[in-house]
Amino acid sequence: MRIFIFCILLSVSFPVTAQLSHSDAANLLKNKGLEELAAYDMLKDLTANVGHRLSGSDGYEKAVVWGKKELEKAGADSVWLEPVMIPKWVRGNVERATALCGRMQYDLTVCALGGSVGTSKDGIKSEVVEVHSFEEVKALGSKAKGKIIFYNRAFDRTKVNTGEAYGGAVNQRTSGAIEAARVGAIGVLVRSMTNAIDDEPHTGAMRYNDSIPKIPAAAVSTIDANLLSELLHKERSVSVTLRLSAKTFADVPSYNVIGELRGTEFPKEIIVVGGHLDSWDKGTGAHDDGSGIVQSIEVIRLIKALKVKTKRTIRAVLYANEENGLKGGRAYAARERNHTENHIAAIESDAGGFLPHGFGVSTDSVRYEKIRAYGSLLEIVGADKIQRGGGGADISTLQSIGTVQIGLNPDSQRYFDYHHSNNDTIDKVHPRELELGSIAMSILAWVIAQDGLNN
Amino acid sequence: MRIFIFCILLSVSFPVTAQLSHSDAANLLKNKGLEELAAYDMLKDLTANVGHRLSGSDGYEKAVVWGKKELEKAGADSVWLEPVMIPKWVRGNVERATALCGRMQYDLTVCALGGSVGTSKDGIKSEVVEVHSFEEVKALGSKAKGKIIFYNRAFDRTKVNTGEAYGGAVNQRTSGAIEAARVGAIGVLVRSMTNAIDDEPHTGAMRYNDSIPKIPAAAVSTIDANLLSELLHKERSVSVTLRLSAKTFADVPSYNVIGELRGTEFPKEIIVVGGHLDSWDKGTGAHDDGSGIVQSIEVIRLIKALKVKTKRTIRAVLYANEENGLKGGRAYAARERNHTENHIAAIESDAGGFLPHGFGVSTDSVRYEKIRAYGSLLEIVGADKIQRGGGGADISTLQSIGTVQIGLNPDSQRYFDYHHSNNDTIDKVHPRELELGSIAMSILAWVIAQDGLNN
Repeated sequence: MRIFIFCILLSVSFPVTAQLSHSDAANLLKNKGLEELAAYDMLKDLTANVGHRLSGSDGYEKAVVWGKKELEKAGADSVWLEPVMIPKWVRGNVERATALCGRMQYDLTVCALGGSVGTSKDGIKSEVVEVHSFEEVKALGSKAKGKIIFYNRAFDRTKVNTGEAYGGAVNQRTSGAIEAARVGAIGVLVRSMTNAIDDEPHTGAMRYNDSIPKIPAAAVSTIDANLLSELLHKERSVSVTLRLSAKTFADVPSYNVIGELRGTEFPKEIIVVGGHLDSWDKGTGAHDDGSGIVQSIEVIRLIKALKVKTKRTIRAVLYANEENGLKGGRAYAARERNHTENHIAAIESDAGGFLPHGFGVSTDSVRYEKIRAYGSLLEIVGADKIQRGGGGADISTLQSIGTVQIGLNPDSQRYFDYHHSNNDTIDKVHPRELELGSIAMSILAWVIAQDGLNN
Repeated sequence: MRIFIFCILLSVSFPVTAQLSHSDAANLLKNKGLEELAAYDMLKDLTANVGHRLSGSDGYEKAVVWGKKELEKAGADSVWLEPVMIPKWVRGNVERATALCGRMQYDLTVCALGGSVGTSKDGIKSEVVEVHSFEEVKALGSKAKGKIIFYNRAFDRTKVNTGEAYGGAVNQRTSGAIEAARVGAIGVLVRSMTNAIDDEPHTGAMRYNDSIPKIPAAAVSTIDANLLSELLHKERSVSVTLRLSAKTFADVPSYNVIGELRGTEFPKEIIVVGGHLDSWDKGTGAHDDGSGIVQSIEVIRLIKALKVKTKRTIRAVLYANEENGLKGGRAYAARERNHTENHIAAIESDAGGFLPHGFGVSTDSVRYEKIRAYGSLLEIVGADKIQRGGGGADISTLQSIGTVQIGLNPDSQRYFDYHHSNNDTIDKVHPRELELGSIAMSILAWVIAQDGLNN
């Protein structure tokens, strides 16, 4: 009984709006985060019990339920689902490419690119032409007619930031089918978007143009891309038979998952932390973007544990459908434009759960300098590199309402080894590296929630 | 024939002392390094074809031959072996600890600490007492007599730099046997030096004091340390039987392996780059310190490829016997003290082949500021954090002759997961992370070799 009364007294006397210095808060967030490594446990659960979760799949629906439950467990003041229509593209069971060259026949390791049309049951068959740029495709002219175009421009390995190497190669994947069909090709094979030389194909989004024929598109593993290229250099003619069972269905209803810690003084001033809940249907989306999801939930859990309410609202948004549509980000922004809330900043984590170096910030110079000054606080977790330019696909939709865009910048060396492939699994994530990202996001969310960005 | 003459003209006209700006050199080093990733290929070869290489073992002798060959292949102007007597400690086949508690019997995962004496064939058997500090050991007083002391102070997980966590725990391993024997204990078990919770024991050096009885010492995996601790909290009494076959033999003759690019203007001013060629006899020493070895050889290869000779000499030293004696470092320094050479700076890599953040520098403020100014060049590989304090065990022996001590500082999150255990294998090393370390060392060695550190 005495114990009970003592507890009541304690909780009554606890100062819910107590002052906590930024540096004390940062230390508490760091210590609790590193002691408990909870983001990793969440990610283990997500990858093991939900698995991959492409928009429109059962996996995504399970992820919605999982995300809501985790935000509640993390201690969010309120958690809700925001309706959004999302695409449904299904890979199906068949993705097979066979290279034929003289009497040789060789099965290439391929997978359909996300959004690709399928082929007939017998597939398409044609000679292969290797190219490295859209200029080369254009130059082929009528020689491309009826052919399968093989895009084989590799990552530039000399780029230290692998994101830049990706940026320099990814148009082959996103627009390769359009450019190839424009000159009459009937299909495309694309070298996987990675520095790694291995036998895993990497999927990812591709686009069509409604005024140009939609031709099937598949990624080839880098080992097989090198092999196919060698073959083409040695032999006069190499044909490929490509069979894909991919198919697009009508959009389906689903949700963004949202949870927040309500601010005490300016509850309508919002700091978003987020990532995307969907993943590709390869591996279990551990880094992309399971990491961003669990880090965002961990921000709620860690800041809640400070037991000091923030002045502004911190809201974790688990966005639907980043990978093939961005419908979640668009729906959220569309709703918010009609609201009376003021989204002052959004922090996205969608570059993997690796050691954080800092943040990239897109805003005016006054607010940039204000955020840059927080670098000294972020130094305790080594995330003090504040750079101009950055954000994330999901939060980019908030740009039109003036929200400061902030992207967590983790180390990029290993990301594309796993990205969009069967290699993106929990064993590639390090508990402490992942947690340090959560802590960095928590510190930045905390200080902006306390100080705002206007003075 | 015309081709032949053309080649001669080309090589004659090649300006061997041509000017190359620091930033051009840095870019060339970066591009060649990242294109070829040769450090990783060397490390793959070392770990696959030499394997672990403890001082005094056949493995170490193979490593000497390997190191000499690789330095020659890298293009060193001269390569030589420097004689040094090194210890020979052999683990033997038996390392077994069985916990006995009532009717329960449980085999703990253990390994002898490096340098430990062995036990008799039947082993030692005694009750176990858990402690977390030397103060606790001292306080045990006569209660420790005849017991096995179990050191179970874990890493402080809240330390972002895991090296600091190691520093806060490792005296249990290095001096635990001395302190336990001082109060009459007959053996020690030491929690493995790692943040990871797994079933691998981590070995490492331990010391004896000749005036205090030498008692056997073994590392316990963290899983089994936790289990043993739980058992001790639940049960009145837990005994352990410990059997070790470890044995120390007489010192044996071996070598440091050295190769250099001779400077053109000040050949007797030396910049050392180095790591240690020996490893523990667990795993294959891929990170510790295979990485430092291949990075140092890669410095020679990359700078040689610039085809511009440096003004000062760059010397790669593959030190013998860092792990259990530092005999290599001492022999090198002792020789050098009698020489007319001036060792202006030494750069060691012995913290794993992870992404480099920068360098730690131990010197006076004038030279420190000079090195710090090179941070802007190192930024192209993200290794621009130049901090005060740093170096490495091997090069510490050069401190007495005034050599500036510089240590490569890679990311520390994963290092102790592998360190001194069967987990330290090539699959834990990322080719690009490893190479970026080589490039950072090359850039720094290059600029110091060109500019010196005196003006």
